[in-house]
Amino acid sequence: MTVVEIVDILGTVAFAISGASAAMRRKLDPFGVIIVSFATAAGGGTIRDVLVGIEPVSWMTNPNLIYTILISVFISFLFRRYLVKISKTLFLFDAIGIGLYTVVGVEIGITAGLPPLICVTLGCITACFGGVLRDVLLNKIPVLFRRNIYATACIIGGFMYFGLKKLGVPPAWTFPSAAITVILIRLLAVTYKIELPSPYKVKS
Amino acid sequence: MTVVEIVDILGTVAFAISGASAAMRRKLDPFGVIIVSFATAAGGGTIRDVLVGIEPVSWMTNPNLIYTILISVFISFLFRRYLVKISKTLFLFDAIGIGLYTVVGVEIGITAGLPPLICVTLGCITACFGGVLRDVLLNKIPVLFRRNIYATACIIGGFMYFGLKKLGVPPAWTFPSAAITVILIRLLAVTYKIELPSPYKVKS
Amino acid sequence: MTVVEIVDILGTVAFAISGASAAMRRKLDPFGVIIVSFATAAGGGTIRDVLVGIEPVSWMTNPNLIYTILISVFISFLFRRYLVKISKTLFLFDAIGIGLYTVVGVEIGITAGLPPLICVTLGCITACFGGVLRDVLLNKIPVLFRRNIYATACIIGGFMYFGLKKLGVPPAWTFPSAAITVILIRLLAVTYKIELPSPYKVKS
Repeated sequence: MTVVEIVDILGTVAFAISGASAAMRRKLDPFGVIIVSFATAAGGGTIRDVLVGIEPVSWMTNPNLIYTILISVFISFLFRRYLVKISKTLFLFDAIGIGLYTVVGVEIGITAGLPPLICVTLGCITACFGGVLRDVLLNKIPVLFRRNIYATACIIGGFMYFGLKKLGVPPAWTFPSAAITVILIRLLAVTYKIELPSPYKVKS
Repeated sequence: MTVVEIVDILGTVAFAISGASAAMRRKLDPFGVIIVSFATAAGGGTIRDVLVGIEPVSWMTNPNLIYTILISVFISFLFRRYLVKISKTLFLFDAIGIGLYTVVGVEIGITAGLPPLICVTLGCITACFGGVLRDVLLNKIPVLFRRNIYATACIIGGFMYFGLKKLGVPPAWTFPSAAITVILIRLLAVTYKIELPSPYKVKS
Repeated sequence: MTVVEIVDILGTVAFAISGASAAMRRKLDPFGVIIVSFATAAGGGTIRDVLVGIEPVSWMTNPNLIYTILISVFISFLFRRYLVKISKTLFLFDAIGIGLYTVVGVEIGITAGLPPLICVTLGCITACFGGVLRDVLLNKIPVLFRRNIYATACIIGGFMYFGLKKLGVPPAWTFPSAAITVILIRLLAVTYKIELPSPYKVKS
């Protein structure tokens, strides 16, 4: 198992736990928790696959993803009282998750021969739309729409990956450097509470 | 017309009426009622087809499904005062519907050569996600997420169908026995108010 | 650039501004405004493409659509104080948009060899489902479900396009006459407050 695979699993675990704990806060039954957790962890990639035309979608031919999510849900149930206490760890996993998912999405766009802007869009969809799906299923306005350095980090990292690859930098360098860029931007934005300038003068 | 086709139409009718009556309770206009009814009856199969890559999706090449839904909506309008009174009949139709839709979904997964867990997941999506779509469109948390013997029945029946087929039981037996299992579990769960154990100690 | 292309861009602009202003009323951050605007302008066509199996979906191979939307969002930001004042202009653009989108959707169904009812359904999906997606993302019951002459105009125009084409009328006539029919029905319905008869006797 490579480093990327291990870190990829950590990202999936983080998304799955994020979905499961949001669902448990809404008192969903076990089956509902599994669906919301699954939508959070696999939803972004699923939407990407459908838009590009990769069908059956990735998780159908990769049951390891499903097992990872099911185990994450089970662990979330067992330790649901402690999820708040490890929220900083989960936040780190989540940042790792969006870093990796962004790069995977951009790469799939490149493989499909799509233009740069579309590739970066696919990276963002992969990283961010699982969370959008989670919030729609839980009947909330997606938190992503109000937390902009999240998607901004993916956009910057996505363009960086695309640019490095076009410059001929070998894959062993492009993948980690773009993913780490996304992760660092996200960590710095939250640590120092950096936000995009608000377009609204009247406070809500 | 075979027995399966007749029962299949009954299932579609039940889902369509369920969607139409939920939409009428929210005072949607006629067109809104048709869309929600259609999403309830055809939504699960549509999501399944898109995920597997069966495109154009099934209902596009099978207008009978559309006519069945349109007639069901029309009947729901005419008899909207009496829909409450026949709620037990509708519940039975709904149980028949999820039984049949589960088996159809599993079979499509098998035909596409997908692994067992994925086939059963497709059966659940076919049977349950029309209702999820209905609730998202009506701006509610999906009732499925809080009514777990619904999906549980589909999962058990789905694995049973898969298992019987692998054991070499002829189709004339696998299809009805798995569908009837789903239907019976659902009927028994509601009749005797059986629920999965709740993971929440604090009552909501 | 042909007249149709110019009018098509006007339609996209209208939908994009409609999405952006709905998102700004909900105080979304800039990135959220872009996503909701994009979903409103490109969502109907994306759902149509996925259901029919045109993948990668149209906007992935047509970055002009993306640039048009991004510029529309930017303009909406700059002139957000004045959007209310030009609401009649926007309404006209929106009517033009659904007229054109309907015809494009029906034509794609005909090209895919689908039956008449399905072609008209695809026209409606193209014209109307961007707005449905916008409302689901903003956590509201789709306004379309309560404003029925909107979809009704698309259905009438859709069948008209299909009929004229079957009668052998040349494309130079079918396209504009069906689109203008949709636009006129929509304008007349709003001007004279025409509605479908309500099925609800009790007022809501």
